Amino acid sequence: MQEVDLIITGAKALLLDSQNTIMDRAAVVIKEDEIVAVGRTDEIAKQFRAKTTISAGHSLIMPGFVNCHTHAAMTCFRGIADDLELMDWLNSYIFPAEAKNVNPELAYWGSLLGAAEMIKSGTTTFCDMYIFEDETARAAKEAGIRCLVGEVLFDFPSPNFKTPEEGIAYTKFLIEKWQGDSLVNIMIEPHALYTCSQSLLGEVKELSQNYHLPIGLHLLENAAEKKQLEEKFGKGAVSFLKDIGYLNEQLIAFHCVCFSDEDIKMFADHGCNVSHNPVSNMKLASGIAPVPEMLKAGINVGLGTDGCASNNNLDMIKEMSTAAKLHKVALLDPTVMDAHTVVRMATIEGAKALGMGHKIGSLEPGKKADIITIGLNKPHLTPLYNEYSHLVYAACGNDVDTVIINGKVVMENRKLLTIDEEEVMGEVGKIAEQVKESFKK
Amino acid sequence: MQEVDLIITGAKALLLDSQNTIMDRAAVVIKEDEIVAVGRTDEIAKQFRAKTTISAGHSLIMPGFVNCHTHAAMTCFRGIADDLELMDWLNSYIFPAEAKNVNPELAYWGSLLGAAEMIKSGTTTFCDMYIFEDETARAAKEAGIRCLVGEVLFDFPSPNFKTPEEGIAYTKFLIEKWQGDSLVNIMIEPHALYTCSQSLLGEVKELSQNYHLPIGLHLLENAAEKKQLEEKFGKGAVSFLKDIGYLNEQLIAFHCVCFSDEDIKMFADHGCNVSHNPVSNMKLASGIAPVPEMLKAGINVGLGTDGCASNNNLDMIKEMSTAAKLHKVALLDPTVMDAHTVVRMATIEGAKALGMGHKIGSLEPGKKADIITIGLNKPHLTPLYNEYSHLVYAACGNDVDTVIINGKVVMENRKLLTIDEEEVMGEVGKIAEQVKESFKK
Repeated sequence: MQEVDLIITGAKALLLDSQNTIMDRAAVVIKEDEIVAVGRTDEIAKQFRAKTTISAGHSLIMPGFVNCHTHAAMTCFRGIADDLELMDWLNSYIFPAEAKNVNPELAYWGSLLGAAEMIKSGTTTFCDMYIFEDETARAAKEAGIRCLVGEVLFDFPSPNFKTPEEGIAYTKFLIEKWQGDSLVNIMIEPHALYTCSQSLLGEVKELSQNYHLPIGLHLLENAAEKKQLEEKFGKGAVSFLKDIGYLNEQLIAFHCVCFSDEDIKMFADHGCNVSHNPVSNMKLASGIAPVPEMLKAGINVGLGTDGCASNNNLDMIKEMSTAAKLHKVALLDPTVMDAHTVVRMATIEGAKALGMGHKIGSLEPGKKADIITIGLNKPHLTPLYNEYSHLVYAACGNDVDTVIINGKVVMENRKLLTIDEEEVMGEVGKIAEQVKESFKK
Repeated sequence: MQEVDLIITGAKALLLDSQNTIMDRAAVVIKEDEIVAVGRTDEIAKQFRAKTTISAGHSLIMPGFVNCHTHAAMTCFRGIADDLELMDWLNSYIFPAEAKNVNPELAYWGSLLGAAEMIKSGTTTFCDMYIFEDETARAAKEAGIRCLVGEVLFDFPSPNFKTPEEGIAYTKFLIEKWQGDSLVNIMIEPHALYTCSQSLLGEVKELSQNYHLPIGLHLLENAAEKKQLEEKFGKGAVSFLKDIGYLNEQLIAFHCVCFSDEDIKMFADHGCNVSHNPVSNMKLASGIAPVPEMLKAGINVGLGTDGCASNNNLDMIKEMSTAAKLHKVALLDPTVMDAHTVVRMATIEGAKALGMGHKIGSLEPGKKADIITIGLNKPHLTPLYNEYSHLVYAACGNDVDTVIINGKVVMENRKLLTIDEEEVMGEVGKIAEQVKESFKK
């Protein structure tokens, strides 16, 4: 009998491995931070003895969700302004709210609230771009959630830096500080092509090459941006990225709504990655990304919620549900973006898009133990004909019961074990009062 | 001090009255089945003494949701087949599943499961069309949920009748049986114009006039139906309805995806009503109904989930969220279908569409006491800048805590008081096993 740390058992497991195994009466065996075995509960019981056992008898066990695009601290601005023209929304609400209120305290508490919300809806890894990302990393570390974070870089001053050089220096500080951390990973995140000079983009590329780190940026989120960039560059934005040596497997581009067939081909040829954020794209009226075509071309496409000012939550189950249905109605084809494809996008394909497919995204021996359970014994999940269908079309974030990240139980039966929920809600409530005041001045 | 039965107090109340009042520290006073007063908690305490008080300190109080289009018993087929071509879905799965399995037992248990799910996500009234609707009425009555139900009528045999005449006779039986009931209301529901002969439609109209009851039917759900009806009638479907005297305030049409400007004008001119079902329309790739234009024309438009085979849940909060975002991206205009408009559609406007606007849909003295509370003290609903925004863009069905229908508490702190959840899930589980077996034969 092999001694292990934790065994979790459930009615069903979706492994999200290359065979898309669905296992009845499944058990996942964890030693330290890793999955060491996955099998039928009775077989596992013969081979392993665990210090702790979690029995989730009526539950589905699966890998945690990978949220490929967030601005976690923006939970502080959840619902501050909706249903507005994009430029009105940005210039009258979001930018002033940020300029007046974003500081390390807001970044920390907002990110911790975001971590609480993400864990409570089954996300175990998030990819974040915002300001004072060291605070987001600190919050994620405390919450015990895996992350890939980068300071947002652009030409104009941010609450955290006066010049792009200071932004680059802060990114280097993040890289050095968090090197080798078990949960926090750093990436380099120029905001977008319309906010970054070619010289800043050059420095970003150098940093990425020197440290072998991924680059993330917003790309072609709407038609206005596409037009602006074509005028600026005299060519398409993706062609420009190709010319400056950005198209490679280290690149993850957020949104990619206005991608042409040529853009898709260039991304596919160079192994670039995409985060699809359909809820935000719908709410901001950005448009519909040609995701079925991207998948056909073989691009790794993950799912992301975007920030809470444009979603307004961080629930990956809602994101899956939206992704599955939006493309059906857009293409008038109910067969596109089937439930199984979308669940893969929210787990293993998202992990691949972040360059973490070897570590997370499926339940397989050797992978990090990032695991969630979803309680099935509920009216809205009864009866059960198809697990993928229930996840995408019937479930919601609150159906997640238990969350394990890096081998550690961070939520059990919906009780967060790493975050004082009342405290974080109280602190964000105070920040929101300041935000409201700042609009009165 | 006036003696009353129940006072419910909360942090906030959305009254959904004509002034769209949002009240802080609000109390709703209930005597028997009616709301007798709504006011500030301190003022109410001076005037009323209640046998029972429910304090929902951190909650939002609002009228329950009105689901304008369901096939409740189809919970039994939740997730049986997804991501398929419409005709494949219908002919290979839904029709055979229905033909082999629908009987009074399935109708009863499926409807009771639907009622459980609807109450647990805040719906207090639903408008249903299916087979053996007497069983749906019985389940609704036991669950304590308000309903408007009608047997589906068409030219071919159903599991409940061999001829359309038998269908009409069954409808008369429903009308007589449930006359004057406090919760169950009957309507007349010809399935659609492509499944009902003109003679059946004539009998339906006569029944409606004799008993002063509303008529509901599926209408122009997708482009194929529109084309088929134009060929059949030599004119548009709405023009045909006008010619046969169907366009009046008693009519509620489900879907109305392929409505032209002229159709909208005819509906508006005659006071006809619409149920918008965006999740089903997306999932089945039916198309996008021109709802912003319908609202501009002054049509009463409510929201409906459709049945669980094409949604796959009965959650009105998801329906609101989808309705708000779908039209933004379709029209590339983030200002359409704002959160406030959509919450009204899910409550008072839906009530009006069903001809029940005088009885339900808002918190006002004299209306029936159909009330829900939504717990706000949660990470994904923190902070709070705007109540409507949270309801539409951040909340989910499970956030509903307590539900009162017709003055009776049917769920308290998420515990159903009228339905044995385990029993109904068990019975539907058994039915699902039979359904699976029926596909093997």
